[in-house]
Amino acid sequence: MWVRNAWYVAGWSHEFTAGHIHARTIIDQPLALYRTADGGLVALEDRCCHRFAPLSMGRLEGDDLRCMYHGLKFAPDGRCIEIPGQKLIPQSACVRRYPLEVRGSWVWVWMGDAAAADAAAIPPSLALDDPAYRLMAGHLDYTAHYLLIDDNLLDLSHLSFAHEKTLGQDMPQWADERPRMSPRERGLHVQRWIRDHHPRGFMKKKLGDTVDVRNAYDFLFPGVFLQRTSFYPVGTAANNLDREPTEPPLFHRIDEQAVTPISARASRYFYAAGARAEDIDPERLQRLFGVTETAFGEDKALIEAQQKLIDLEPQRRMLPTSFDAGPTRFRKLVDELVASDGAAGAGVRSASP
Amino acid sequence: MWVRNAWYVAGWSHEFTAGHIHARTIIDQPLALYRTADGGLVALEDRCCHRFAPLSMGRLEGDDLRCMYHGLKFAPDGRCIEIPGQKLIPQSACVRRYPLEVRGSWVWVWMGDAAAADAAAIPPSLALDDPAYRLMAGHLDYTAHYLLIDDNLLDLSHLSFAHEKTLGQDMPQWADERPRMSPRERGLHVQRWIRDHHPRGFMKKKLGDTVDVRNAYDFLFPGVFLQRTSFYPVGTAANNLDREPTEPPLFHRIDEQAVTPISARASRYFYAAGARAEDIDPERLQRLFGVTETAFGEDKALIEAQQKLIDLEPQRRMLPTSFDAGPTRFRKLVDELVASDGAAGAGVRSASP
Amino acid sequence: MWVRNAWYVAGWSHEFTAGHIHARTIIDQPLALYRTADGGLVALEDRCCHRFAPLSMGRLEGDDLRCMYHGLKFAPDGRCIEIPGQKLIPQSACVRRYPLEVRGSWVWVWMGDAAAADAAAIPPSLALDDPAYRLMAGHLDYTAHYLLIDDNLLDLSHLSFAHEKTLGQDMPQWADERPRMSPRERGLHVQRWIRDHHPRGFMKKKLGDTVDVRNAYDFLFPGVFLQRTSFYPVGTAANNLDREPTEPPLFHRIDEQAVTPISARASRYFYAAGARAEDIDPERLQRLFGVTETAFGEDKALIEAQQKLIDLEPQRRMLPTSFDAGPTRFRKLVDELVASDGAAGAGVRSASP
Repeated sequence: MWVRNAWYVAGWSHEFTAGHIHARTIIDQPLALYRTADGGLVALEDRCCHRFAPLSMGRLEGDDLRCMYHGLKFAPDGRCIEIPGQKLIPQSACVRRYPLEVRGSWVWVWMGDAAAADAAAIPPSLALDDPAYRLMAGHLDYTAHYLLIDDNLLDLSHLSFAHEKTLGQDMPQWADERPRMSPRERGLHVQRWIRDHHPRGFMKKKLGDTVDVRNAYDFLFPGVFLQRTSFYPVGTAANNLDREPTEPPLFHRIDEQAVTPISARASRYFYAAGARAEDIDPERLQRLFGVTETAFGEDKALIEAQQKLIDLEPQRRMLPTSFDAGPTRFRKLVDELVASDGAAGAGVRSASP
Repeated sequence: MWVRNAWYVAGWSHEFTAGHIHARTIIDQPLALYRTADGGLVALEDRCCHRFAPLSMGRLEGDDLRCMYHGLKFAPDGRCIEIPGQKLIPQSACVRRYPLEVRGSWVWVWMGDAAAADAAAIPPSLALDDPAYRLMAGHLDYTAHYLLIDDNLLDLSHLSFAHEKTLGQDMPQWADERPRMSPRERGLHVQRWIRDHHPRGFMKKKLGDTVDVRNAYDFLFPGVFLQRTSFYPVGTAANNLDREPTEPPLFHRIDEQAVTPISARASRYFYAAGARAEDIDPERLQRLFGVTETAFGEDKALIEAQQKLIDLEPQRRMLPTSFDAGPTRFRKLVDELVASDGAAGAGVRSASP
Repeated sequence: MWVRNAWYVAGWSHEFTAGHIHARTIIDQPLALYRTADGGLVALEDRCCHRFAPLSMGRLEGDDLRCMYHGLKFAPDGRCIEIPGQKLIPQSACVRRYPLEVRGSWVWVWMGDAAAADAAAIPPSLALDDPAYRLMAGHLDYTAHYLLIDDNLLDLSHLSFAHEKTLGQDMPQWADERPRMSPRERGLHVQRWIRDHHPRGFMKKKLGDTVDVRNAYDFLFPGVFLQRTSFYPVGTAANNLDREPTEPPLFHRIDEQAVTPISARASRYFYAAGARAEDIDPERLQRLFGVTETAFGEDKALIEAQQKLIDLEPQRRMLPTSFDAGPTRFRKLVDELVASDGAAGAGVRSASP
């Protein structure tokens, strides 16, 4: 079952260049996105109501979209405004328009009942061009159910193993200590300290031999991961066990990611990584981003293999460990969202992960 | 449900070279076609009755076909005439022989009850080497149900949009005026006038600034499209609204096509295009055919995308427009053929389009 | 239905190099094979009990295997011996260990109830480095159900047709005479004489113009084919109709093969071919092996095509000939093994061939 009443990231704002119609699929729904003359973005159902040709193969005419199979024309609100050879346009001639919002650099689309769309519920995220930061961004396509990627992000103990040579290098603590979790609206807040970390290379030069590292993130439906990793002088952890220190960190790493379900076995993973502008120069950022993308390739290989093994024997039960508190709580939350969708009449069947 | 009691085009006659066994599939039935010594064509079931090896991987021995797995040999009538190591040949040892006829340049195979095969019902079509015409021919494979291609051919209003830069260039009238339709045996006749057309280039030189164009075609099950497009002096349309003018046209374009269902999501589209020999030289014909094939690529891209969107949500209903009279009538006719097949015991389940 | 209580060939022993974890699949079960420090081989379920990541993507730590997703560590007996961040290891934390034996050069894995594994039941086979022989080995992957490959090996009459230019050259007798069969534990013994065979080339030079050839093989579940083809002076057949002659053959060809089902439509075919060391030099062996592999390509093309035709119409019945006694008896035996598995609670559903 998909959750329909939710905001999903359709892409980075810069992907949606003017003058083109961009096809995307979210929870098995085909979308055509395009910019109107004022630069605004519109998301219409990418399926002409006439004979189901994709509107993304059509033509932009001003702010309107013409299907280039038999010529039906649609306004940005989804209403059909022209049927060639026919004067009368029936009311049912329309395609669905999806509520759309741009926040930071992400384009969000509401896939459920438009009346229930609450733009205030969109998670906050940085703009890639925010002058306070240096950030790089990308995306990766998975042949896997989105919840397997969510599981991954909700249990960072995997950094010490899956990423022992990249993101988790010299940080066995990821797997030793359980993080603290607290509820968030449609998600969880996760935080932990990694004490007495010995940075290497550039970080060692910058921060010294030993630091305390505070890792904290919000994880929100459907897979929005807003993480800050802050480096402090040794001893800071002991004085700020359960909260963010009031002094500014020595180094402040940013990771903002979003998982978007495309279909039961396809997902898109959007990510930005970087640091405060004063922490990093463009060349170091390139290097940090390169390591990050290598690590994401490690995740992808594992998760796609995991998906195949799940599909080989779908009834088999996993054995949770103490680190699975995050994934388990989040899956429960997803079940509740599905149920609430169902109660609201928005539920749709989908394959399970 | 496939219609079995029908003639289907298996290919162009010239495809079936002597000395080879040619594998084809029509409505999910595998066929092995080959020529006997007298040049005649035979269509046998491409599946040895013994262990289901394809006879098309076998060997021609005179007019007989030997399965090259365990050596069973079949006569052109489908009877097994040799089983190695065994004297007795059971009566059930045979493969199906399909009635086959060559008409013009097409090879027709009857996929249903052989007793019901009526060669007189085969639609007439030109031979590619008819001296009165210059024609070129080809074929294209679709990943789509054949009825979606039929829909396309039964509503030529799409020429003004899908083919605005090729076949429909400067002819917005395709989408403005509804054609007249009349019933044919297992099909429809469709005709229309396109008045005051302004030809370009070579056609302008030949025909002048303005002409009336008469487009008329038979469309017959399973997807046989026999079209004539005739160019006349301006005014001819007004005098011959509902019939073919008695005077010969200035230019007479020929299009003969056939759609053959292979499986639920595969179809083959055969086409010939050209004109009267006096209308066109070989070089112009090349050009005309090139534009035509470009247009068929436009159709293929649209129809395959349409098929994917249909499969994404098979229960969803299309919204017919006034141009859908042709497709709607033809689909009704197909339903009747399926029902009549079922009554005759020839019906077979198949995936829907 | 798969037969679980059986030994299957997982591969040639030399495939399983030390220091690596080798992923294999047998009857839809994923296996991770690796060598312990003493050179022994271990086969564990290739699916971590925690979140189903493949252990074959993990890390060897001495004789143990660590899952490199979240770090669970397993001993060679399948018990989990470490869960990072957790002291208590539940008893259910384990992966299945499969009984494994190496015989000759084949690695055998028992896929059913470990208590029922009887190493004495493993068919005998030669080691590739046996000094009495010169052998070459390889394997081939099929997109087909394993029983179709078994059928092929149980009816060698196909040599005269499928392999008329390779293994069956100048031997029409394969298809003329039925072999004698006798039961074996979980299989059949098949033997025949091919009299008055006229060898060619190197064999003619070695053996003379005419020889009698004795072909005999055991065929054992799941598809173990242990064949000897022995060349004798003319007349030997007449004196030894139903038994192996007591005198040594002039030339003694070895073929040892094993079919392993991977999934319903994937199988792996292992094969070794050669002769007594005194019969053949390395260069001739290369040639003999080359012809053999060409012939296996002929089988693969036929059997994969046969599988497609079966899948096109799975309910259709084959027509057995007198040569099908072997395949028919063997399929009955497989049915009995499936039933006996079911009675033992080891049965698992699988697609039929």
